Amino acid sequence: KIDKDRLWQSLEEMAQVGPGVAGGNNRQTLTDADAEGRALFQSWCEAAGCSMGLDTMGNMFARREGTDPEALPVYVGSHLDTQPTGGRYDGVLGVLAGLEVVRSLNDLCIATRHPIVVVNWTNEEGTRFAPAMLSSGVFAGVHAQDWAEDRTDAAGARFGDELDRIGWRGEEPVGARKMQAFYELHIEQGPILEAEGRAIGVVTHGQGLSWTQVTVTGRDAHTGSTPMPMRRNAGLGMARILELVDRIALSHAPHAVGAAGHVEVFPNSRNVIPGRAVFTVDFRSPDAEVIADMEARLAEGAAKICAEMGLELALEQVGGFDPVAFDPDCVARVRAAAERLGHTHMDIISGAGHDACWINRVAPTAMVMCPCVGGLSHNEAEEISPDWAAAGADVLFHAVVETAGI
Amino acid sequence: KIDKDRLWQSLEEMAQVGPGVAGGNNRQTLTDADAEGRALFQSWCEAAGCSMGLDTMGNMFARREGTDPEALPVYVGSHLDTQPTGGRYDGVLGVLAGLEVVRSLNDLCIATRHPIVVVNWTNEEGTRFAPAMLSSGVFAGVHAQDWAEDRTDAAGARFGDELDRIGWRGEEPVGARKMQAFYELHIEQGPILEAEGRAIGVVTHGQGLSWTQVTVTGRDAHTGSTPMPMRRNAGLGMARILELVDRIALSHAPHAVGAAGHVEVFPNSRNVIPGRAVFTVDFRSPDAEVIADMEARLAEGAAKICAEMGLELALEQVGGFDPVAFDPDCVARVRAAAERLGHTHMDIISGAGHDACWINRVAPTAMVMCPCVGGLSHNEAEEISPDWAAAGADVLFHAVVETAGI
Ligand SMILES: NC(=O)NCCC(=O)O
Ligand SMILES: NC(=O)NCCC(=O)O
Repeated sequence: KIDKDRLWQSLEEMAQVGPGVAGGNNRQTLTDADAEGRALFQSWCEAAGCSMGLDTMGNMFARREGTDPEALPVYVGSHLDTQPTGGRYDGVLGVLAGLEVVRSLNDLCIATRHPIVVVNWTNEEGTRFAPAMLSSGVFAGVHAQDWAEDRTDAAGARFGDELDRIGWRGEEPVGARKMQAFYELHIEQGPILEAEGRAIGVVTHGQGLSWTQVTVTGRDAHTGSTPMPMRRNAGLGMARILELVDRIALSHAPHAVGAAGHVEVFPNSRNVIPGRAVFTVDFRSPDAEVIADMEARLAEGAAKICAEMGLELALEQVGGFDPVAFDPDCVARVRAAAERLGHTHMDIISGAGHDACWINRVAPTAMVMCPCVGGLSHNEAEEISPDWAAAGADVLFHAVVETAGI
Repeated sequence: KIDKDRLWQSLEEMAQVGPGVAGGNNRQTLTDADAEGRALFQSWCEAAGCSMGLDTMGNMFARREGTDPEALPVYVGSHLDTQPTGGRYDGVLGVLAGLEVVRSLNDLCIATRHPIVVVNWTNEEGTRFAPAMLSSGVFAGVHAQDWAEDRTDAAGARFGDELDRIGWRGEEPVGARKMQAFYELHIEQGPILEAEGRAIGVVTHGQGLSWTQVTVTGRDAHTGSTPMPMRRNAGLGMARILELVDRIALSHAPHAVGAAGHVEVFPNSRNVIPGRAVFTVDFRSPDAEVIADMEARLAEGAAKICAEMGLELALEQVGGFDPVAFDPDCVARVRAAAERLGHTHMDIISGAGHDACWINRVAPTAMVMCPCVGGLSHNEAEEISPDWAAAGADVLFHAVVETAGI
């Protein structure tokens, strides 16, 4: 078993870096706070005897050697970046539980046959630079690195420039590493495990995602002196499309969700009818056909709304991945570990996207989930208990060591 | 008659200060560009022999002396500040036409009995600091100056601090001046004059306005892993209220308009269900009862929408004024001037708010309007013709000189 108090203590310390405004964190990717969090993580890894690798996307790889020089490493980890108003555990738990696996092996003086590498993937959240899971996506060959580095944030800053600016670009080419397996522990970010009273989610699948950036163009005009029939109100067009998004997602309930988290109107002045609205629709489902249907209905319905209102419409896919089935052997090892440790468990589908979803394409991969209070995540009030964290980390420990061999 | 080419030339020169991105202007109030525009205006006024007064709200008063030391000045002017994506004429025409009145009197060596004062009112647009017509409102005793100075922009900067920062706070107390009359020339910002083929609008009334800032509070949560029934999506609540605003305004058509130009969601991240939405509803009508009805239906309807969705609602009045009837004598002088000059004209109700609407409370006031192309304003593509500008300025000239006496 891992050291519950040490794991919790590390989570608390990391939460001091990039504090939020309500007890959570704002440690968005490639900010100064991210650099500070990375340095803290590196210092812990080195204290635990690991050597740190760093690739040209800023992905961090802390390696504990194995006994067999031929054996591929077992990878374990997640991400340290957060939402602007993020929780303390989303991603962080997976990275620090990986470190705790190494620390526990050190305590127990256990040498594994395969090396163990603890990973921190850059820009998992996708909040500053879309899409999410950007650097694990480059690692898995899903995105071209040049394209990824050209992603810009709301202020126009490039991913590549920001990576250089914070000083965390390494020299190692991205995706060169071969993996025996990859394991990621993550909080559920949904309500199921808590509601069902299970300590462990054995993640068999991940739902797919589609992010469509919608641009509605009308005409800036005076809110007072422009007659109603002459208006081309892009903000009102947006409102109608947001309602449509909700209707489309509900029509597939409970097998789909949909919402827009990102919304902007221009010029955003109280007495100017918005001439342009830009927002991003997030549709998800475990079923690829459902996602395709939702995308098609959005395109058709939004075109109809805009045509009726004299608005122009442009849709751009800014993120997306297909539903994922994790590696059956790795999944079985997670389930067996939960069983062996006597934790209540259930199979579960991940509602969120994770680095594991991309890495699953290039290595046998599985995920462990633990509950979070009220299913709340992407909120500073995100909460888990030390016992939940420890149970998840114990299962991770067993699955990793089982794979790495003694 | 005024000098058409000189007026047009001054409009062009002022448009060089704080250029926009599409041929218009971004010379928002109390920015560096505003300071530059003020300095240019002051230099022109001084070259025309005027002395410049400046009050503690930054209102500028360029005075041409009269022959009767006892006679109250006739005031004429508008505002030099613009929207973020504003036109070249909204406000500017009224100020520079006032200056052109003075220049023309100089050319013609005409001395008036009453002094003439050309005014530039601070923060008419209300885009950076709500409400609109802030400083003419303080002048007219509608707003307390302390309250006005405490208004903040989106970045949290205080009006009073920004006024000090750009160096345009004077020492004269606000509202101390007594006026014989106030005249304001303004582009219509609507389509009526052009459609009716009239050169001059004789503004008899101004419609009233109500700005309600709406805050909808739900709960930040993950867009992927939060089941639809557990969501408290403030962005979706906002969308429904925006639709309601449109419905309410249309129910009073053509005697009312309504829209929201300002819209924000928080934390504004693609994969976070918005936990908060803040937007400002702009309702207008020439009929105070209609405005009251629209406000009441917004409050009731928004409360219902939020209650059904588990959202909290807060409404705050951030701007408002009653419909205005301008001074019959001043209005008659404007109409007579148009008649005398042989310009086609019609009586019109202003759809927009103007400094004249507040000054009307403390002095006999009237407005002159000229057409603008396609009724378009609060848009960088706002356009007028030199002939339209000259016709409006000529009518202004005659009305002012008639009032000031020779
Ligand atoms: N786990 C997580 O919140 N990842 C961000 C990507 C997503 O939106 O699912
Ligand atoms: N004239 C003008 O655009 N004034 C701004 C105040 C308003 O919104 O009506």
